Amino acid sequence: MTSQPHHIVVVGGGFAGLWATRALDDPSVRITLIDRRNHHLFQPLLYQVATAGLSAPDIAAPLRHILDAQHNVEVRLAEVTDLHPQQREVELGDGTRVRYDTLLLAAGATHAYFGNDHWAPFAPGLKTLDDAVRLRRKMLLAFERAEMETDPAKRDAWLNFAIVGAGPTGVELAGTLAEIARHTLKDEFRHIDPRKARVRLIEAGPRVLPSFPQDLTDKARAQLEKLGVEVVTGTPVSDINAEGYRLGEHFIAAKTVVWAAGVAASPLARALGVPLDRAGRVLVQPDLSVPGHPEIFVGGDLASVQQDGKPVPGVAPAAKQMGKHIARAIKARLAGKPTTPFRYQDFGNLATIGRMAAIVHLGKLKFSGPLAWWFWLAAHVYFLIGFRNRFVVLVNWAMAYISYQRAARIIFGDAHDERKPGGDTR
Amino acid sequence: MTSQPHHIVVVGGGFAGLWATRALDDPSVRITLIDRRNHHLFQPLLYQVATAGLSAPDIAAPLRHILDAQHNVEVRLAEVTDLHPQQREVELGDGTRVRYDTLLLAAGATHAYFGNDHWAPFAPGLKTLDDAVRLRRKMLLAFERAEMETDPAKRDAWLNFAIVGAGPTGVELAGTLAEIARHTLKDEFRHIDPRKARVRLIEAGPRVLPSFPQDLTDKARAQLEKLGVEVVTGTPVSDINAEGYRLGEHFIAAKTVVWAAGVAASPLARALGVPLDRAGRVLVQPDLSVPGHPEIFVGGDLASVQQDGKPVPGVAPAAKQMGKHIARAIKARLAGKPTTPFRYQDFGNLATIGRMAAIVHLGKLKFSGPLAWWFWLAAHVYFLIGFRNRFVVLVNWAMAYISYQRAARIIFGDAHDERKPGGDTR
Repeated sequence: MTSQPHHIVVVGGGFAGLWATRALDDPSVRITLIDRRNHHLFQPLLYQVATAGLSAPDIAAPLRHILDAQHNVEVRLAEVTDLHPQQREVELGDGTRVRYDTLLLAAGATHAYFGNDHWAPFAPGLKTLDDAVRLRRKMLLAFERAEMETDPAKRDAWLNFAIVGAGPTGVELAGTLAEIARHTLKDEFRHIDPRKARVRLIEAGPRVLPSFPQDLTDKARAQLEKLGVEVVTGTPVSDINAEGYRLGEHFIAAKTVVWAAGVAASPLARALGVPLDRAGRVLVQPDLSVPGHPEIFVGGDLASVQQDGKPVPGVAPAAKQMGKHIARAIKARLAGKPTTPFRYQDFGNLATIGRMAAIVHLGKLKFSGPLAWWFWLAAHVYFLIGFRNRFVVLVNWAMAYISYQRAARIIFGDAHDERKPGGDTR
Repeated sequence: MTSQPHHIVVVGGGFAGLWATRALDDPSVRITLIDRRNHHLFQPLLYQVATAGLSAPDIAAPLRHILDAQHNVEVRLAEVTDLHPQQREVELGDGTRVRYDTLLLAAGATHAYFGNDHWAPFAPGLKTLDDAVRLRRKMLLAFERAEMETDPAKRDAWLNFAIVGAGPTGVELAGTLAEIARHTLKDEFRHIDPRKARVRLIEAGPRVLPSFPQDLTDKARAQLEKLGVEVVTGTPVSDINAEGYRLGEHFIAAKTVVWAAGVAASPLARALGVPLDRAGRVLVQPDLSVPGHPEIFVGGDLASVQQDGKPVPGVAPAAKQMGKHIARAIKARLAGKPTTPFRYQDFGNLATIGRMAAIVHLGKLKFSGPLAWWFWLAAHVYFLIGFRNRFVVLVNWAMAYISYQRAARIIFGDAHDERKPGGDTR
């Protein structure tokens, strides 16, 4: 062939984008991977950074480094702000356009307040490393403020924590925060008893971790309560402001509210001009291409895929599988062969709750407690990219486990300025 | 005794403040340790965080955790903004005052631009973890910008790095940055060759690392040049702006200029109303107390101490020794005994330059190169507080050494916004 290699633009270096890119290590295609961050993030452990168990670099690796040996890939650190499907171009933040032959849109999701965007400044969510460091700062500073406060009502407000949403992230945050209050911080203050901190997990739906069967959900709730979390289900939060939140008839004074109640697809999906589902995700074809645009694929959290009457979940294994499927579909197209429909292979569902507490659902196998926790730990450490990360994460966890200490309890920014660093309201 | 315990206020949880506090583990005194950060920082390794070799939490430990078992200590996260020596009170950022019987002022130093404060936005310095994360971001983003730039002159400006000041921090930053450009990043870009980055170390004085003897200084310079650093001595930088810097007659286009040329004492020293030296440090009595105020001691970088006609250097061992001396002096006073003069015990002087490059001066013993580097590494890892930190740092370094990779190459904040996070100009 003397023609130019086929140019694939991949938007997003998460699990879907990165796995597709790696599977396309072939000199007949040229790939431009565009991400607005310089790193691939191991999102399943992001809550550990937010709760000071891990450092940010422990769960992230530079995209350039991951891909340095794959010579058909160019990594660009830039934000894609618009798509022009008719011209086959993506538009970057600085106005430049990049032309593609094939596009993989894997820009992921962000947390969403479902029409209550004014809650965002008071109830930050957790999607990026910046979010995690900001959340860590907010949680740790709350104990510091409580220690300085002499008014008992205000002190209680600083020691009142609420996590809104009992999906995996909400459960992890609540369980770990309870552990920090009860164990990590217990001897460190002179005026407050951190064990009296109230950690509340609030879910509008009827139960925690609704993607699990009822019996495991019940076990998860029992484990949360044993760790000291107060679980409230069936009640939506109806308002959040700087002083606290409203739950049914009651306004609860709480200085730390965390949003884990929902995600919405990247707004980029709208630029495709095709039907989206209620969460803004693209209703893709069976082969994950976009209706009317066989040259555009969508993967990861941005793709809405139904399988056997149920949605494919927004988890890392599904995103990786989509990425690999899309790579195969692109190769099939280039070879003039038909594409096959995507099928999600569900290897099981795990959720961690806190120290020695987790639930595992693998086909007919269901278990919970310490064994589930070890299983979860092993699986997650194994899947972290790169040997160094795996090993250091293991060491950090082993030390945290033995000592009850959390290594990353660093508050960035000055103590007197609550809005640093990057203290905006994203 | 039925009287109230003697109340000691310690301002600053650096080496002087923390070592004094630990040496005063005695129920007859009550200590309030005030710091505006929640952590003790192992400052000698701060440049490793700036150059992405270590995570911020690797070199910092929460003050509350370090001191949790010392029951006569209360840690307060607050900024001391003023002193009232006549009333024996310190004033906090929120206006509250804390009364002391004895005060230890150990608020340290900050980087100083010597009348050129308008250079600060273009040439950030390195004193805190926030500084280090910001510097890391600035350096890594420069390579990203160069990769995106199509104009060759602008591209060169992004690949031009200048470190102003060839003291220990400047030398460490220059040597490590050269290593990153030549080894860590070498295969990761498609449009630039990071090895062509120009790393210049600029010193107004006649030689690098002037606290070392001439022969070791010469060896340090040779090692820097071998690592790829261009060393310029005897020439001060006469201007710095967003486009570059002026050196003698020439203006050099350089997007990344780092300030390592000088420190000034905390402005709190002025509130004492006693004579200061040219760098703003307190000219203390031989026992490290303040003239006219036997109840106030000054330690660490804030104290100006002459010994045998030379100033005691602003290094961690000196600060620790001062802290311990002040603890002894306070105990002597409480027992009605005279205090003794402080004597700095110089155990030697080490400086690291880069991979396998360092110089060591221990009394009559002088050596350089790989052996000096291993010696430096062992000493610094040994002195890091706490087992966990030591071990993880060792692992990180071992991995970095084997792989040439740097684990903490994470750019926080959005790619399109150069001013986040905490992107102010401190």
